[in-house]
Amino acid sequence: MPKSKRRYLLREVPGGVAAPCGFEASGVRCGIKSRGLDLALIYSVAPAAAAGVFTTNRFQAAPVLVTKDRIGREPIHGVVINSGNANACTGGKGYRDAVHMANLTADALAVPKRSVLVCSTGVIGRPLPMSKLSSGIKQAAAALDPEGGSAAAQAIMTTDTRPKSVAVEFELDGRPVRVGGMAKGAGMIAPNMATLLAFITTDASLSPGLLQSRLGAAVKRSFHRITVDGDTSTNDTVLLLANRQAEAARITPQHGLSRFREALDYVADHLARELVRDGEGASRMIEVRVRGAASESDARRIARTIAESPLVKTAIAGGDPNWGRVLAAAGRAGVSFVPGLVDLSLGTVQVVRGGAVARHRASAARSAVRTSEVRITLDLNAGDREAVMWTCDLTRDYVRINAEYHT
Amino acid sequence: MPKSKRRYLLREVPGGVAAPCGFEASGVRCGIKSRGLDLALIYSVAPAAAAGVFTTNRFQAAPVLVTKDRIGREPIHGVVINSGNANACTGGKGYRDAVHMANLTADALAVPKRSVLVCSTGVIGRPLPMSKLSSGIKQAAAALDPEGGSAAAQAIMTTDTRPKSVAVEFELDGRPVRVGGMAKGAGMIAPNMATLLAFITTDASLSPGLLQSRLGAAVKRSFHRITVDGDTSTNDTVLLLANRQAEAARITPQHGLSRFREALDYVADHLARELVRDGEGASRMIEVRVRGAASESDARRIARTIAESPLVKTAIAGGDPNWGRVLAAAGRAGVSFVPGLVDLSLGTVQVVRGGAVARHRASAARSAVRTSEVRITLDLNAGDREAVMWTCDLTRDYVRINAEYHT
Repeated sequence: MPKSKRRYLLREVPGGVAAPCGFEASGVRCGIKSRGLDLALIYSVAPAAAAGVFTTNRFQAAPVLVTKDRIGREPIHGVVINSGNANACTGGKGYRDAVHMANLTADALAVPKRSVLVCSTGVIGRPLPMSKLSSGIKQAAAALDPEGGSAAAQAIMTTDTRPKSVAVEFELDGRPVRVGGMAKGAGMIAPNMATLLAFITTDASLSPGLLQSRLGAAVKRSFHRITVDGDTSTNDTVLLLANRQAEAARITPQHGLSRFREALDYVADHLARELVRDGEGASRMIEVRVRGAASESDARRIARTIAESPLVKTAIAGGDPNWGRVLAAAGRAGVSFVPGLVDLSLGTVQVVRGGAVARHRASAARSAVRTSEVRITLDLNAGDREAVMWTCDLTRDYVRINAEYHT
Repeated sequence: MPKSKRRYLLREVPGGVAAPCGFEASGVRCGIKSRGLDLALIYSVAPAAAAGVFTTNRFQAAPVLVTKDRIGREPIHGVVINSGNANACTGGKGYRDAVHMANLTADALAVPKRSVLVCSTGVIGRPLPMSKLSSGIKQAAAALDPEGGSAAAQAIMTTDTRPKSVAVEFELDGRPVRVGGMAKGAGMIAPNMATLLAFITTDASLSPGLLQSRLGAAVKRSFHRITVDGDTSTNDTVLLLANRQAEAARITPQHGLSRFREALDYVADHLARELVRDGEGASRMIEVRVRGAASESDARRIARTIAESPLVKTAIAGGDPNWGRVLAAAGRAGVSFVPGLVDLSLGTVQVVRGGAVARHRASAARSAVRTSEVRITLDLNAGDREAVMWTCDLTRDYVRINAEYHT
């Protein structure tokens, strides 16, 4: 959401997922990856309501199955996340390992077994190194800290080049309420190879139903808008925990919900944009907006086809205003529209009017795609629905990273 | 079609599109591209029946509209093709230019105006250089030759690294019948940026209806199996001309059709594989076979999603048997299946059994993807339908070529 549209005062605060009251976090190294932190823990001192959005891939990793089974049913005290191994396509043993990983965490935190959620990201098809995890979990529990958000954000990275973490505060009833978050992505974002993971925490008090519906809406406007390469992973997970430790009153549709929604949307929007900016090999962020469509699903399908077109993405990487490739991608999206009505702009430069090239300065069109955030706007002039996708350009570095990331 | 399945004797002969009796061809330079031949002509001394398969992109280039309008209605004497400019997204002027280009050719060949078809490939959104074309067409008409097939195959190339041309002969009633063809592709194959073009000629005698149905079937088993980057172009066209100049009797479903079908399939299969082998930046050809599906469309959708996955294609480029990426791509194809039943092989090495990693030698899996033709076979074990897609790997060279191919 553009900042100008916000109605209430939001203030960024440090701390990431551990910024809200009653949350602690840690990130440690247990040796799954060849280097760097690879195990993160989020802990809530009070039982938290939890909501989740998960991968739609037919292949769902063991930790996804375990977490889906627990969410919404039990009060949650902790989330354990490892990077370096996705625990996907690992059969019955993988499922038992995921449950065991959660149980080890529950023991270390001295909380009920089913109050821990579990996520994994990394290579597919390898068994989890349970002895490393076992000692790592103890270490992570001992390291829990209200200042631990940034270590946790580092520990969930795979091919990400930098941690993604943010937190905001707003006031309700004269009392502060906070929403914090962290995410990891890089490749296989659409979301991607093992994986898009995002964790959002809040000290607000909301019913589990309201929490789930607000998370769904926030994800639709953020993580569901991003695509790096069209490859959804087996492990994609977005979790939201609300532990009710803020002193403000309970949030209801009648009280405080619009403020909470703005804070949640801000965090989700920030993390999603960061994921795209840090897409594998990315040199530019691209926003594709399709408007004037008969339906939102038409608009979304066209926007996604453009955003995932290798020819469009390589053209942007090369700083080339190749609008012909944008039209060609739109035309193959499987949506019926009248080509002769289509307008297209790159940044503020209109390059196509009524389906044919519009008179424009080539240098202006070039400048419009040689920026760090490129805007492509296609208008079908056939309705009033629209959709937005965010992606990044396709560079030689993307290929290098993905050709060399070995199983 | 594998050669072993052929029932009749087919013999490759030289000459490409000009190999069948009564066809001539030429390729000349008229200055549309910065270098190389850029204008091709195919001429039939006798009026030919014609069939065509065209791009399904909503944006269709002017020459596609002109050619679609003529095909099946008029006897055809010639096809004029330029490379370097797609005459797409060029509005009403583009349409008039395409008609004019065909008329100039009809004049040069002294044949009826509506007996000429027209194709263009190259950059989108620029007006055709009509004066260059006008002198080029005269030059090409003067250069027509029964030996001109290879020059024509060169003149239709854009980012192709080599011409694609083939011809075969079979016997019917003790008389030779020939089928010849040429194609160009490279990027935007699915088929791609402006363009997949293929031209097939035969001296056989068939009804226009039979010709169209056989072309449709041949395209389904060849050009519709290939994808380089998922980007269909505005100009994709496959044409088949039959001029009845062979001395053999008319081909009917009862007489000679199976022989003709084999010859046509051979030519289409050969050209389609050549297009993939010469995909932009390609270092390996990949065949994706999905079997055991409940329906052919399910199988096709999964095969295509795997074949277009940037993560799968970069893994193959890197010689990495990353079967997790293959499963993840299959799982996001939008097809319902049971993950726990899925088997996957790379070459002859089974790497997944029942949805989880199968015991296999890592070195054998590596060898299976470090070949010039990589075979990926996914079995859903849920039916008896199957589909095949052919693609190529995604290399840094693909990005280089497409980032530098400027509008």
